[in-house]
Amino acid sequence: MNYSEEKKEQLNADKKQMLIGLHLGNGYGSQQGAWRMPGVDPKSYTSFDARVKQAQAAERGKFQFIFLPDGPGAVLADIATEAPAFNLDVMLTLAAVARETQYIGLVATGSTTFNEPFNLARQFKALDVMSHGRAGWNAITSSGEDVAANYGKRIPSSEDRYGRAHEVIQLIQSLWGSWGKDAWIHNQETGEFANRNEILPINLQGKYVGSRGPLYIPPSEQGQPIIFHAGGSPNAYELAGRFANVVIGAAFTIEDAKAQRNAFRESAKSHGRNPDEIKYIAGLMTTIVKDRRTALDRRIQLAGDSLVQRLGYLQQMLGIPLNPSKVDEPLTKAQLDTARLSRYDPRSANALKIAQEGWSLRDILAHGVIDYHPVIVGPGVEAADHMQAWFEAGAADGFWISPDVNSDGIDAFVDEVVPILQERGIFHQDYEGRTLRENIGAPEQYGIDPRV
Amino acid sequence: MNYSEEKKEQLNADKKQMLIGLHLGNGYGSQQGAWRMPGVDPKSYTSFDARVKQAQAAERGKFQFIFLPDGPGAVLADIATEAPAFNLDVMLTLAAVARETQYIGLVATGSTTFNEPFNLARQFKALDVMSHGRAGWNAITSSGEDVAANYGKRIPSSEDRYGRAHEVIQLIQSLWGSWGKDAWIHNQETGEFANRNEILPINLQGKYVGSRGPLYIPPSEQGQPIIFHAGGSPNAYELAGRFANVVIGAAFTIEDAKAQRNAFRESAKSHGRNPDEIKYIAGLMTTIVKDRRTALDRRIQLAGDSLVQRLGYLQQMLGIPLNPSKVDEPLTKAQLDTARLSRYDPRSANALKIAQEGWSLRDILAHGVIDYHPVIVGPGVEAADHMQAWFEAGAADGFWISPDVNSDGIDAFVDEVVPILQERGIFHQDYEGRTLRENIGAPEQYGIDPRV
Repeated sequence: MNYSEEKKEQLNADKKQMLIGLHLGNGYGSQQGAWRMPGVDPKSYTSFDARVKQAQAAERGKFQFIFLPDGPGAVLADIATEAPAFNLDVMLTLAAVARETQYIGLVATGSTTFNEPFNLARQFKALDVMSHGRAGWNAITSSGEDVAANYGKRIPSSEDRYGRAHEVIQLIQSLWGSWGKDAWIHNQETGEFANRNEILPINLQGKYVGSRGPLYIPPSEQGQPIIFHAGGSPNAYELAGRFANVVIGAAFTIEDAKAQRNAFRESAKSHGRNPDEIKYIAGLMTTIVKDRRTALDRRIQLAGDSLVQRLGYLQQMLGIPLNPSKVDEPLTKAQLDTARLSRYDPRSANALKIAQEGWSLRDILAHGVIDYHPVIVGPGVEAADHMQAWFEAGAADGFWISPDVNSDGIDAFVDEVVPILQERGIFHQDYEGRTLRENIGAPEQYGIDPRV
Repeated sequence: MNYSEEKKEQLNADKKQMLIGLHLGNGYGSQQGAWRMPGVDPKSYTSFDARVKQAQAAERGKFQFIFLPDGPGAVLADIATEAPAFNLDVMLTLAAVARETQYIGLVATGSTTFNEPFNLARQFKALDVMSHGRAGWNAITSSGEDVAANYGKRIPSSEDRYGRAHEVIQLIQSLWGSWGKDAWIHNQETGEFANRNEILPINLQGKYVGSRGPLYIPPSEQGQPIIFHAGGSPNAYELAGRFANVVIGAAFTIEDAKAQRNAFRESAKSHGRNPDEIKYIAGLMTTIVKDRRTALDRRIQLAGDSLVQRLGYLQQMLGIPLNPSKVDEPLTKAQLDTARLSRYDPRSANALKIAQEGWSLRDILAHGVIDYHPVIVGPGVEAADHMQAWFEAGAADGFWISPDVNSDGIDAFVDEVVPILQERGIFHQDYEGRTLRENIGAPEQYGIDPRV
């Protein structure tokens, strides 16, 4: 290492660094049609081998966590042509990954609305022990009537959902803390298995849920799992500010993201916490290919006929009529001059910006302008630039990446984006430790945070 | 192979053969003190490596299944000196085992009383897919108030528990069958992911539970998991006769076991099923050591001081006063002559039989005469003889084995008992197939059995 490299490394060590997570949905990837792409195993949906391999790819890229959303709702609408959106079972998938990875955090969604808290407490803590301290629980409320119907129920009011959510998280953290840190003695000489005085019932009974406890699971290497939350309502800010160390955001612009991030930070402060304890993670969808043209062609191949079907919606975003027979032509100057952006869709400005660059209608759509997160379709440096800009503007503490097609899209990100971020000193060179708390910089916690 | 061997093998092929399962509780073994034994990892309770190794040992012995009981109740009574009775989480444990074994069946208890049926359906089917068709669900009702308290509830009446259990099993089997056998097309050429006409909502709403469905998990190699049941009440006979392919019994004598087995078979018949579709599995606890004396010494070492504390209960079983200061002496002829067996404990006759053999009080207790299943303390041939006698008397279709200490007790059974049973032609030489249905001889089933 020469002098300037050493200096750079030292500077980088002081620099704040971003977090990166991998969104692992149904396993094929985030784009419709991913299951059909050449090189993709069409049976990947049921392949735990494939899930493990994908997690290992993210671990090679030093991602802090994989994130498995869940929402067991309706599947019939698109099943003829598309895979269901989620993993077969998020906990069993993470159990497999826990056994075959060493550092990466393991995060899954578990609804506070349709689970018995004791069961959730037990499975996430068992996963935490199994993974030697790498578990995170994305504690959400369920709001889809299609999900409720699978439980033979209706969705409760927002007040009741969040009321229950607060109780469920408190109860679960209490169960996690019901074995004291040093309770497990397992001394074969003295015959003392556990310190009876450090294993206590919790005896909680709220309006919605209750439990006597204790749980029967000793602490993991990180004590207990970390709480994640996803959502953007005032209720979500309140819940996350109280309990979460990581929030999964959904924003299309730096301004939106900054506003969301600040709202979560303010909420944490109002609960007596250091706002830096809550990390705001913005979404990013990626098609990383060496040049923009090749990347767009990949997206066009993926989307097939469905791409042009979105013209109608693009028309609304731009406020001008678009002619399907001219899908391979750019917008005329007259069209661009009369465009009036939809105020209902925050993605409209980006769509117009891309249109102004002179891309054809098909290419505009292939840029993912109607996708549900910001999209990078191009070489790795474009993703790195985007991430750096957001990160340095205070719009995000990190990103959760949704590759278009997992089978090669994770590797593309790891090989083409991660090294640039590392070179720029804004992403770590290696894992800081073995637990998720160490790797995301979350404070130690056992049981309920005494401040909240 | 010479002529007589060939002939023997042919004869054996026609012979009915027994099933064997391994009871995997907390992982240490079935005897108190197991966690303290020399050679045992005192941290085995949280070691998924250890659970996998134990399952692999059973698979080496061609066991048809491992069986993980569960009942998340109180743990405080014995925690100072003993491990909790169950696995940290039965489903995550089986997920780990599924990834690292190939043939053995994976069975866990899941309560119909305190689980959302949709969640149970999903996890067991995901396990079934993950293990390529090796999952079994021990569908029980929870009856302990200590379990209910962990869910902030009271135990429902027996009528309500079994009423709900019937609905839950029906609903879950319906969800399992909601993807037709050939529904998953995944044809990359045509773009057809699934046959929409073979994936149907179930729209069940009962008195206790309901669900719209469908599930979003395709069939496993065995279609769907197998139902196990454990219990001995009229309600249990009724439930098992309707749904179960395997019942986990608890009987101390051939007569008891025959009566239980026949009751389950009669119940199956009354539901229009072939009684051979329901396999009755008797319990057996084992300390397999080369000779009886060494085996008894192992049990004495395991039990420590707790052994002599059981003298009071032995006294009740035999109906005679026993002197703790004479614990290392056999009963006198006068004592034996005046013994009056307790009619409340079916184990009493066996205790007297062992006493009559001239063993000391300590050795009588070390025979496990107060354990919760029949016990073999001695060389492998004694276990084989016991199993053959029960099997050939029609008292059991198989056995679930609870070794005293798992770390060496599973291997002892595999090395010392299994070869004798195989030699006698009453246990298979190798797995019949890759699925649990193939290996226990359960009929194909998809969705609800149309006969019940």
